[in-house]
Amino acid sequence: MTTELTHERVTEAAAFLEGRIRRTPVEYSAGLSERMGMPVWLKLEFLQITGSFKIRGAWWRLRQASAAERATGVATCSAGNHGKAVAYAAREEKIRATIFVPSSVDEVKYQGMVALGADVQRSSYAGYDDTEAWARQEASRLGMPFISAFDDYDVMAGNGGTLALECFEQVPEAQAFLLPVGGGGLSAGFAFVTGGAKRLIGCQHELSQALRLSLDRGQAVTTLPAVETLAGGIEGGIGALTFAVLRDRISEVVLVSEDEIRVATCWMAEEHQYWVEPTAAVTIAACLSGQVRLTGPAVVLVCGRNVSAGTMSRVLGLR
Amino acid sequence: MTTELTHERVTEAAAFLEGRIRRTPVEYSAGLSERMGMPVWLKLEFLQITGSFKIRGAWWRLRQASAAERATGVATCSAGNHGKAVAYAAREEKIRATIFVPSSVDEVKYQGMVALGADVQRSSYAGYDDTEAWARQEASRLGMPFISAFDDYDVMAGNGGTLALECFEQVPEAQAFLLPVGGGGLSAGFAFVTGGAKRLIGCQHELSQALRLSLDRGQAVTTLPAVETLAGGIEGGIGALTFAVLRDRISEVVLVSEDEIRVATCWMAEEHQYWVEPTAAVTIAACLSGQVRLTGPAVVLVCGRNVSAGTMSRVLGLR
Repeated sequence: MTTELTHERVTEAAAFLEGRIRRTPVEYSAGLSERMGMPVWLKLEFLQITGSFKIRGAWWRLRQASAAERATGVATCSAGNHGKAVAYAAREEKIRATIFVPSSVDEVKYQGMVALGADVQRSSYAGYDDTEAWARQEASRLGMPFISAFDDYDVMAGNGGTLALECFEQVPEAQAFLLPVGGGGLSAGFAFVTGGAKRLIGCQHELSQALRLSLDRGQAVTTLPAVETLAGGIEGGIGALTFAVLRDRISEVVLVSEDEIRVATCWMAEEHQYWVEPTAAVTIAACLSGQVRLTGPAVVLVCGRNVSAGTMSRVLGLR
Repeated sequence: MTTELTHERVTEAAAFLEGRIRRTPVEYSAGLSERMGMPVWLKLEFLQITGSFKIRGAWWRLRQASAAERATGVATCSAGNHGKAVAYAAREEKIRATIFVPSSVDEVKYQGMVALGADVQRSSYAGYDDTEAWARQEASRLGMPFISAFDDYDVMAGNGGTLALECFEQVPEAQAFLLPVGGGGLSAGFAFVTGGAKRLIGCQHELSQALRLSLDRGQAVTTLPAVETLAGGIEGGIGALTFAVLRDRISEVVLVSEDEIRVATCWMAEEHQYWVEPTAAVTIAACLSGQVRLTGPAVVLVCGRNVSAGTMSRVLGLR
């Protein structure tokens, strides 16, 4: 396990992942460009294998697994996408994986992890933070090393770092990037690579605004009360390590509501014909909310597509 | 306009399209492979620009437009995907396009054509065949050359021909291909390239089985009564030119029901996390129906994703 974030590690991670995962396309958005008055591209990272960007960090992290981790297997906690990615990477790396998930986990994510051969343990808690606390206790009790879904330098390098390099290559003129912020693994890795040279707009749920609160208080808000939301991937506190990377490198935080996320999910389908998961639509929601004033070309990251028929029905307002 | 199908024209079309459209990925399907007892890959052509394979034939055809066609503009008729593709290609080629659509057109397809700048004319008929008859009359009255969505050698070369070449490169070991069959542009182009050397399984709606009927009768059934279905892209008769190509080259036809298509659409989302349009799920439905016995590796073509929230609600059984 790496103890610091370096540009060299990010480059190594990108080289490792090349050919193992997809290079997802960017797509020009006529609708968002018109609305924002600047050219806007969508980074279609939800088309990634395992259904989200999480495979980048999970695979890179498991590739660095110690002899002890390879011997005993690893434990992790996830609202779904990181867990599915760990399950996939663990199968490839021949490491046993136990994944702890909240009781509110999307059914398709749960089934995806099971199908990939992971041992999946459902928590009695609906929220991420409570589930992680329990997962860490259980892992300790079982003698399994615990891998954080975000507060880990290899995960940051893989998730956000390699995505940043790819976005720069695909849209070199981009001056601003809209990123979803949950635990902060993606945004911290991305922010580390940009190093303040680009405008980074973190997008959060108004009922789970860990980054905003952390910036206000000057210290990481690592736990928050559980929130009932279709966007489980951005629910909960931020990491202590990720916040340390983010605090001087993130430009601003935009907050959106549950209903704005739901509308943005439908907007993405109507305008671009991709049904993504609500968590991934938080960046679109930020654009549609009117809170972001662009002064140059932008890339909007759309990060996951793991969504069950049940969740989809709720998005469509039918249940 | 080309008057015959040749391997050279298919190769030219592929070279023209390279870099202009996406090279869509193939994805191994653990679920279908287990069920079919053979390795099965999905060709994710629904990730193509404009949301379907139709851009291949439409753009290649418009690139061949005559001086007269470029001067007066062109007319076409489409259940949606071909129309959207023509609208896109016409904008790129700076040709005026008028697109006639059935009254039952999916709203997101309609809006997509309008957004791309096409003149879209809604018919008073719900079925494709009645709409095309009216469209041809209107085009003639207005002095506009009419471009068939399938019964055209350039469209066949672009749609099915270039897709076949791509599938062979991506899955060289494939011995069977499952293809959706509507007017036959895709399947005829594909069958021309394979020339009988591969097993081609045409998939149709049981209520609109033009290819099956044509094979039985020994002549093209070019019109059929309108059918109410979520899979509008495979509704209606087959082309006379496409059937002439298909009759000795297609291995078999599999028929599936409306409900099987609906279930297959949901299966695709639950198993692979892609929400595609019902028309595109007809090939998946054929696999799930138990009617296909594979004797070697197969590629299942999944061809479009243009589906509105309203259609999605009906797929989910909620309206």
